Amino acid sequence: MNKKMIVYLLGKILQAEGLMLLLPTLVAVIYQESLVASYGGLACLLLVMGGLISLKAPKDKGIFIKEGLFIVGVSWVLLSFFGAVPLVVSGEMPHFADAFFEVVSGFTTTGATVLSDIDALSHASLFWRSFTHWVGGMGILVFTVAFIPVASGRTMHILKAEMPGPIVGKLVSKTRVAARILYLLYGALTLLEVLFLLLGGMPFFDSLLNTFATAGTGGFTMSNAGIIGYHSPYLEGVLTVFMILFGVNFNLLFLVISGKGLLALKNEELRWYLGIIAVAIALLTVNLMSVYDSVTTAFRYGAFQVASIITTTGFVTADYDQWPMFSQTVLLLLMFVGASAGSTGGGMKVSRLVMVVKSGVKEIKRMLHPHGVITVDFEGAPVSRKTLNNMHSYFILYALVFCSALLVISLENLDFHTTFSAVATTINNVGPGFNGVGPMQNFGGLRDLSKYTLSFTMLAGRLEIFPVLLLFSKYFWKE
Amino acid sequence: MNKKMIVYLLGKILQAEGLMLLLPTLVAVIYQESLVASYGGLACLLLVMGGLISLKAPKDKGIFIKEGLFIVGVSWVLLSFFGAVPLVVSGEMPHFADAFFEVVSGFTTTGATVLSDIDALSHASLFWRSFTHWVGGMGILVFTVAFIPVASGRTMHILKAEMPGPIVGKLVSKTRVAARILYLLYGALTLLEVLFLLLGGMPFFDSLLNTFATAGTGGFTMSNAGIIGYHSPYLEGVLTVFMILFGVNFNLLFLVISGKGLLALKNEELRWYLGIIAVAIALLTVNLMSVYDSVTTAFRYGAFQVASIITTTGFVTADYDQWPMFSQTVLLLLMFVGASAGSTGGGMKVSRLVMVVKSGVKEIKRMLHPHGVITVDFEGAPVSRKTLNNMHSYFILYALVFCSALLVISLENLDFHTTFSAVATTINNVGPGFNGVGPMQNFGGLRDLSKYTLSFTMLAGRLEIFPVLLLFSKYFWKE
Repeated sequence: MNKKMIVYLLGKILQAEGLMLLLPTLVAVIYQESLVASYGGLACLLLVMGGLISLKAPKDKGIFIKEGLFIVGVSWVLLSFFGAVPLVVSGEMPHFADAFFEVVSGFTTTGATVLSDIDALSHASLFWRSFTHWVGGMGILVFTVAFIPVASGRTMHILKAEMPGPIVGKLVSKTRVAARILYLLYGALTLLEVLFLLLGGMPFFDSLLNTFATAGTGGFTMSNAGIIGYHSPYLEGVLTVFMILFGVNFNLLFLVISGKGLLALKNEELRWYLGIIAVAIALLTVNLMSVYDSVTTAFRYGAFQVASIITTTGFVTADYDQWPMFSQTVLLLLMFVGASAGSTGGGMKVSRLVMVVKSGVKEIKRMLHPHGVITVDFEGAPVSRKTLNNMHSYFILYALVFCSALLVISLENLDFHTTFSAVATTINNVGPGFNGVGPMQNFGGLRDLSKYTLSFTMLAGRLEIFPVLLLFSKYFWKE
Repeated sequence: MNKKMIVYLLGKILQAEGLMLLLPTLVAVIYQESLVASYGGLACLLLVMGGLISLKAPKDKGIFIKEGLFIVGVSWVLLSFFGAVPLVVSGEMPHFADAFFEVVSGFTTTGATVLSDIDALSHASLFWRSFTHWVGGMGILVFTVAFIPVASGRTMHILKAEMPGPIVGKLVSKTRVAARILYLLYGALTLLEVLFLLLGGMPFFDSLLNTFATAGTGGFTMSNAGIIGYHSPYLEGVLTVFMILFGVNFNLLFLVISGKGLLALKNEELRWYLGIIAVAIALLTVNLMSVYDSVTTAFRYGAFQVASIITTTGFVTADYDQWPMFSQTVLLLLMFVGASAGSTGGGMKVSRLVMVVKSGVKEIKRMLHPHGVITVDFEGAPVSRKTLNNMHSYFILYALVFCSALLVISLENLDFHTTFSAVATTINNVGPGFNGVGPMQNFGGLRDLSKYTLSFTMLAGRLEIFPVLLLFSKYFWKE
């Protein structure tokens, strides 16, 4: 382990968070809020502290997978810890477990909240919550690499550990350039959504924050009424489209912008992703006609909720706890499906599921022809055995984390739907669950043990299990 | 495909069911019930029909995996179909979907019932229900091979497809001898349990039927009150011990009888199995002290329910729907764990889970050492890649069947705990679920579509997915 390099990079990451915290400080200044000191003070502290730690780059800049996974696991915990401090210090969320849960929920783009009164929050803190979505969606380390001068030739290993999905395609060979292109594209789409929301009459601050939540597929809202409060089919439509858009692999969006849109359309994951969305919306529209008075209304609410849940954003425009169990079950399953690899969305990812289901079905063929060579194809090429094994292990460890968390949360002695969906919605980084943690409820009533457990599942889900479990692995520590 | 041989073997299997049906006929004669005609008539019909179909053994007796899987899949459906006929004809269960569900539940040793008034059933039908558990536990085809003269050298392929667990050990090289030894051992243990129950004052007919249900890890009871009705800690204790015993790999029981008990104790799956049981009982005892007035009572009910659920028997002595959610969640997870491979129990099987979890944890090691050779050891030997891949596929297809069934059952519009546990308890062949299908409820209120769907999940669970899915696979039919 290259310990010096790890410390150096962690210093850089703290600097990056210092940089991020300057924005809510600015918001506090603009709105003349007393939180200037909390946010500004921490920003300065982190910039100085991080600067001192990473003053001198070590001579040996070698970073391998091991270091990459470790840095990712540790830095997400560290950043969530520091990110929670201003909320505690300012007195807005005096209880640390609450503030930590909220910031983890922000960075992991889950969007589950412990707050029962969001309206009471200051502008600075509202901004900070939503901004963590925006940064967390693309990745804290991608942010660091893009905006902080880092001396390292091997940062790809870190980015790989942080990026969602079974296979990470590279935009360009140089990490730093890739990170900047990603953020440029991300920024452009963000700007576009803000414009569309402004056109619908949404105030600027709201437009910005709701866009952060959409872009990161996070789902924090900035008022108790949430998206329902805008009472605007236009705005709901814009959000639906952008949620689906931010659930698409950014490499494909890059292709579209480069004028190779047709090539993007041939992408297998994209087709499955859009296909699943279409089928789910159709199923819900039919099923919801028993609830709403017209097909249009059923479609409007069905489409929004499907887009929100599969992309793991977690915005809501309907109390789906009142829907028939079939619609609820479709939504629950979509939580696990999640968005595309290489997007800001959570869940298991469409491509991973498609490959794994294909490999399962092929096993039937293999049983019939025990000596034949049987391969699984995805995106027109055979999937390597190594990738398949890695995905299988991902599912096993995912299930282990899920069941362990389920047992801990069951100690709350709430009903099963609440217990199960609390774990499902956090590990898949969605946000709202069902019943006690449903769309009209929050996570504030849980005990500290549950809040820390769900913070853990959110991190495990966002980082796709391995970097988080690594920190608890004997294989890692005994070396 | 050797079609002639398939037809020949199906004929033999029908003969075997004819043979089985002679027993409830005898019970009807003894208790002077009018069902003699129903059971006796069908028995004769099947014996004659099966005899005619398999009059002449085909010259080519070659049976391969493909034929084996097909025969297993088809014969279980066929036998359940014919097994349901006397219940319908006698008027005791006039609705076919009910009778089919009940018999599938019997053969698959699930023990879920659609009957709200079991007391109203005739002795013959009570016997038939419970006897299907006994036969289904060890396997319909094992029964056929053991008791019907079958001309084939390759029956091992069929037995493999029917036997539970990831790897099937052979007792002896000859299938027929193995099948007979299995049934000898099975019969001896059955007799032993009957004796122990008789000693506790249970009537003979009750002892016999409850033993059938224990031995097959089925769980059908013969009265509305069920096991609770005996009000006997002794009988509960005997059942607890025998349930755990029948959840042990029969190869190990054979070792014990052969005087190699110490060798059996070194078995890794056995250790995990007993370890999980011990931990689960401990957890429940502590958790249930808030419900019951003493540790002893908490232990008594905790231990019985744990043994019943992990072995997938499904007997109940407590309304665990009233227990704290933690205890309920432990029981729910145990449903998925299931018993040992090579036992009569259902679920995913302890050995499969242990191997798969090991392979998942090892992936962390593999990520740290991308070029190292990393193997998974079980029972002191490395697990082959082929076995691991097959198990991974099993889990994927299991999850697919589970989610599909969940969607269908959600159309009932019942609560989530009921919906989820209805699928969980049937696919794992346990019996009772929670809430609407809980220990004090039954499956009678469901629609026909749900009953057929759950019949399917019971079969898929018992036959470990592959033989059942094969019947729907394009790979199979296009050849």
